[in-house]
Amino acid sequence: MLESVPIIIGVIALAFVQYLYYSVSREDAGTQRMREIAGYIQEGANAYMKRQYTTIAYFILALAVAIGIFRGGLSAISFILGSGLSLLAAYIGMNAATRANVRTAAAAMKSPGKALKIAFWGGAVMGLSIVGLSVLGIGTLFVVFTKVMGGVKKAALDAVVPFGLGASLAALFAQLGGGIYTKAADIGADLVGKVEAGIPEDDPRNPAVIADQVGDNVGDCAGRGADLFESFSDNIIGMMILGIAFYHRYGEAGILFPLVAEAIGVLSTMVAVLLIKEKTENPVATINVALLSAGVLNAAAFYVLSKRLLGDPRIFVAALLGLLASLLVGMIVQYYTGTTYRPVRNIADSSVFGPALNVIVGLSVGLESAFLPFVVISAVVVIAYALAGLYGIAAATVGILSTTGIIMASDTFGPISDNAAGIAEMSGLSKEIRDSLDVLDAVGNTTKAITKGYAMACAVLSAFVLFAAYLEVVGLADVTGPRVDIADPKILVGLILGGVLAFLFSALAIRAVGKTAGEMVAEVRRQFREIPGLLEGKAKPDYARCVDIATKHALREMIAPTLITLAAPIIVGAALGVGPLGSFIVGGTVVGGLLAVFMINAGGALDNAKKLIESGLHGGKGSEAHKAAVVGDTVGDPLKDTAGPSLHIFVKLITIVALTFAPLFL
Amino acid sequence: MLESVPIIIGVIALAFVQYLYYSVSREDAGTQRMREIAGYIQEGANAYMKRQYTTIAYFILALAVAIGIFRGGLSAISFILGSGLSLLAAYIGMNAATRANVRTAAAAMKSPGKALKIAFWGGAVMGLSIVGLSVLGIGTLFVVFTKVMGGVKKAALDAVVPFGLGASLAALFAQLGGGIYTKAADIGADLVGKVEAGIPEDDPRNPAVIADQVGDNVGDCAGRGADLFESFSDNIIGMMILGIAFYHRYGEAGILFPLVAEAIGVLSTMVAVLLIKEKTENPVATINVALLSAGVLNAAAFYVLSKRLLGDPRIFVAALLGLLASLLVGMIVQYYTGTTYRPVRNIADSSVFGPALNVIVGLSVGLESAFLPFVVISAVVVIAYALAGLYGIAAATVGILSTTGIIMASDTFGPISDNAAGIAEMSGLSKEIRDSLDVLDAVGNTTKAITKGYAMACAVLSAFVLFAAYLEVVGLADVTGPRVDIADPKILVGLILGGVLAFLFSALAIRAVGKTAGEMVAEVRRQFREIPGLLEGKAKPDYARCVDIATKHALREMIAPTLITLAAPIIVGAALGVGPLGSFIVGGTVVGGLLAVFMINAGGALDNAKKLIESGLHGGKGSEAHKAAVVGDTVGDPLKDTAGPSLHIFVKLITIVALTFAPLFL
Repeated sequence: MLESVPIIIGVIALAFVQYLYYSVSREDAGTQRMREIAGYIQEGANAYMKRQYTTIAYFILALAVAIGIFRGGLSAISFILGSGLSLLAAYIGMNAATRANVRTAAAAMKSPGKALKIAFWGGAVMGLSIVGLSVLGIGTLFVVFTKVMGGVKKAALDAVVPFGLGASLAALFAQLGGGIYTKAADIGADLVGKVEAGIPEDDPRNPAVIADQVGDNVGDCAGRGADLFESFSDNIIGMMILGIAFYHRYGEAGILFPLVAEAIGVLSTMVAVLLIKEKTENPVATINVALLSAGVLNAAAFYVLSKRLLGDPRIFVAALLGLLASLLVGMIVQYYTGTTYRPVRNIADSSVFGPALNVIVGLSVGLESAFLPFVVISAVVVIAYALAGLYGIAAATVGILSTTGIIMASDTFGPISDNAAGIAEMSGLSKEIRDSLDVLDAVGNTTKAITKGYAMACAVLSAFVLFAAYLEVVGLADVTGPRVDIADPKILVGLILGGVLAFLFSALAIRAVGKTAGEMVAEVRRQFREIPGLLEGKAKPDYARCVDIATKHALREMIAPTLITLAAPIIVGAALGVGPLGSFIVGGTVVGGLLAVFMINAGGALDNAKKLIESGLHGGKGSEAHKAAVVGDTVGDPLKDTAGPSLHIFVKLITIVALTFAPLFL
Repeated sequence: MLESVPIIIGVIALAFVQYLYYSVSREDAGTQRMREIAGYIQEGANAYMKRQYTTIAYFILALAVAIGIFRGGLSAISFILGSGLSLLAAYIGMNAATRANVRTAAAAMKSPGKALKIAFWGGAVMGLSIVGLSVLGIGTLFVVFTKVMGGVKKAALDAVVPFGLGASLAALFAQLGGGIYTKAADIGADLVGKVEAGIPEDDPRNPAVIADQVGDNVGDCAGRGADLFESFSDNIIGMMILGIAFYHRYGEAGILFPLVAEAIGVLSTMVAVLLIKEKTENPVATINVALLSAGVLNAAAFYVLSKRLLGDPRIFVAALLGLLASLLVGMIVQYYTGTTYRPVRNIADSSVFGPALNVIVGLSVGLESAFLPFVVISAVVVIAYALAGLYGIAAATVGILSTTGIIMASDTFGPISDNAAGIAEMSGLSKEIRDSLDVLDAVGNTTKAITKGYAMACAVLSAFVLFAAYLEVVGLADVTGPRVDIADPKILVGLILGGVLAFLFSALAIRAVGKTAGEMVAEVRRQFREIPGLLEGKAKPDYARCVDIATKHALREMIAPTLITLAAPIIVGAALGVGPLGSFIVGGTVVGGLLAVFMINAGGALDNAKKLIESGLHGGKGSEAHKAAVVGDTVGDPLKDTAGPSLHIFVKLITIVALTFAPLFL
């Protein structure tokens, strides 16, 4: 009975997604000009996604064959399902976002509350597609495999691990490709348009402006969506494997718990989404109410499940601890990247001494910002472990991830409002309407910052849960002797190699943006120079050319980092064995996690320092300080939107690859 | 008998230092104007060193009292000796450098070969002071403590560990203080002088120019000197402790080996220094011959010592491996930071798209550059361990460090030539003389790059040797059960905390430069604005004011990062125990080491990309690409000369603090 709960809830969630999608689509899409621009964006995004998915499909199929040979056909199917559902969820979510953006702009002409609702419901399509498809997919696989294999333990292992691998691999491709695309376009549009030509952001004369808007959708929306699909799925998977280890304590319930708990989290997300009403005065308060309701409902569900299903209320405490920690990390991220606090003010102040000092202070803020979140995570690890062992740590992570749906909804709300503001600007809507959309955009920036802290805490803790699952699978969990003992030089070397791989991975991601953005700058400069009357608004730029540059490079540059991430654990495992592969995972996770926080917060702080100056500080827009801050913002772009979020997936992909192929090295 | 070898060689080295010092001092110091400028620099450097040493002395004495209470009076004396000798060596070396600079400039008026010799001999004062005082100090303590305590084992432990702690603590203060001073002055001078006012580098109208020159001496010279004094000393100490563990295999010889081997390395350094002749055609070849000779002599000494003293030729192979690895790392660093290779060319090319892309590509080069060196280090660890266990890894490190003297000589050669070129510029010497000094300056940049790779490899490997020594001391080395098992969540947390501390440390170091440089920029702008006739060369700038700003801030900002580094291992040890403290060390070392390479190479590559453009690429000096590259160079400054090298000391300080206070947590 219990095992059908995730499947039923998954189906309900998909029906709800359909309802949201059509509710949003039915809304008015505004003027002819708005539809035209939205059409460009939609077309560009769909064209990119089609090419990206084709490229990814080749790799998925090739690897599916390898998995089929090595682990059997059922595992290959599970792998394909994991990657396919991840891409599907991201696609549905992005598609809804490209419809919600223009309708949000149109609604802003009538009522700000309605605009908020459309943007949030559009985002909720993404949020619920992710969690719905994940519990549905894992739930179905689990039921089928239990029947076929005749036992929950083997089903948990064989059904869900390849699913997780598929989800991670697809996510890394999507996040890298989307991240490179969006930042190259953004930098190209900003550096030439804003800095050199002095035209406003989102100005239709800018040849890269459509690519920039497309980028918001394929990078921020679809990329982040695939990222959270895999965080959500991998975490369920890791805890299910730990459930096998805790079979003596919780029985089958220990394996099912994460799946059922997250499924109930999907239900609370739906309730929370319905709380977003049109008659709203304060958008921040409205979203906070939704977030809070989801959190409270989940906590209640955890309490019941811990007591009834597991008979162990400590699991409830651990899950609550996780929820609390993610809140705390979100607040810390807010402190380091919010415009009202010291760090961002310091960056803004240093901008009067030129771009170099702006960047220097920005980098130092990013580096510093890693400290407290990791202390919080460390505290969670120690306390949850003391409460209920490794299962307690996993429960803390499940606690965090139970709010994935609603968090992702409010995150996708960000790019939708951003796009809406862009469409309003390009369509020449009145200043009043644009201002009300700018309010939503600012709200979106806040929710995005929270999500980033949240995603980071999830990624690192999930990776540790997967690491514990790995120890289980390779039989190192119950040994009394040294297991992953870094006093052993070979194990130490594994740790070093994991850490250095995170550096190499970041380097490749950042360099890809640098290269692509360079070509974009050259192209935009060329169009301004060669198309007569462009800057005067008398001629139309060649948007397609810029879209094409971003597309071509993103698809090419996403491959090398992904393949390296895929191959490295296999090479380390084959060369050094399962012990060093274990420390390799940990090295990659700790270093990758630290780099991710550094990069995401440095980028966020630099971005907001620029916004602070734009709001009038140190001379406002056009001042020398502002020019310096634009440089800093641009430096932060590939850090916060390409390398940083990709590192989240990197840490889990190395682990799940190790988990999948570990039996080879035993 | 054998134990007196280091003492005798130490005394000989000091006599040789005196000979070199007076040989250099006897040379002609040039024109009145040159003497005047050199006087300013010498005065500023001495004034700063006096204040810095006074500040450091308070902390040293306070800690000496604590050590005295906790480990006894002899340990306190050893601690004071370690810090005192470190500061003394750095002071002697820097003092010689501030005499050699102007004499190098004066000699360049007559013969380029003579200029080379003076600069190199000036640098050799630093190199030989370091290694001479280190072997003399440790050697004497060891002999005295063996007598007092009646046994080599206890002597090795009690005499040398506090010595190492003193050396590390003094080094961190010196490197941080010097690094903040030099970069704040450099950035202040460059940003306002070169970029805003458009006057050349080292122009006497620039108010920050003297502070900049002083900075080269107190940062690059004295800071690096203290850094290598502690690398050299800590490594001997770590291996001596391992010698106790290998007592069953090598007897007392195993404890004495590192001390004697390094002492013989001091002898070969003296021979190599004497090979620098005045009649030289090619300065690079001349320095290479000296480096190579020292290497060959050391290899021979290792062969004899391994066979005769230890009766184990595998130790010779391990030491050779270390030498080879440091060479390889040097070459890799050259590839990533040299102007003739792809990475720096890519940075230079991206500069045409503005400062942001220059910095982005520079950061990616730095991140990428960590990969290969750490693969090399990993290979050394695995192979040397397979050869002769942990003692083999230590031998590899001793192999690298045996060339410290000559490496440090050629490194100090860098700032001396740099200063000489600056003095020539400020004194209005002819273009021909300045060109011949620029050749030396370029040679200096190459030797500096090699040293940085060398120092990195030393730091990381030394830290691992110290980690092995730590395991020995806390009794975890011979346990058959798990020792530092990261499968244990508490140990994992130790690892995370070590890693995140490296981030916090870097953040504080970089921020200190950002703050100080900001004040310097403001001051230089003020002087240009308020002193009438300054830019026309009719009035003199207020050099002292800039020197004062750099001094005040450097002294203040060096304290917090040092205290955090000192306190963190004690807090972790007290809260979590010796196991997590062990993983804390490893986390700090791996993450700190990776960050150091990233920062040093990113800074080096950005610096050279600017130089490449200055040599005529993309429009040369004054072009938009050049302006962009100057921003990148400035961003790289605190990374490569403040945070990066300080991280080298950070990794060893956390370990030696753990080593000293470990008994408290058992």
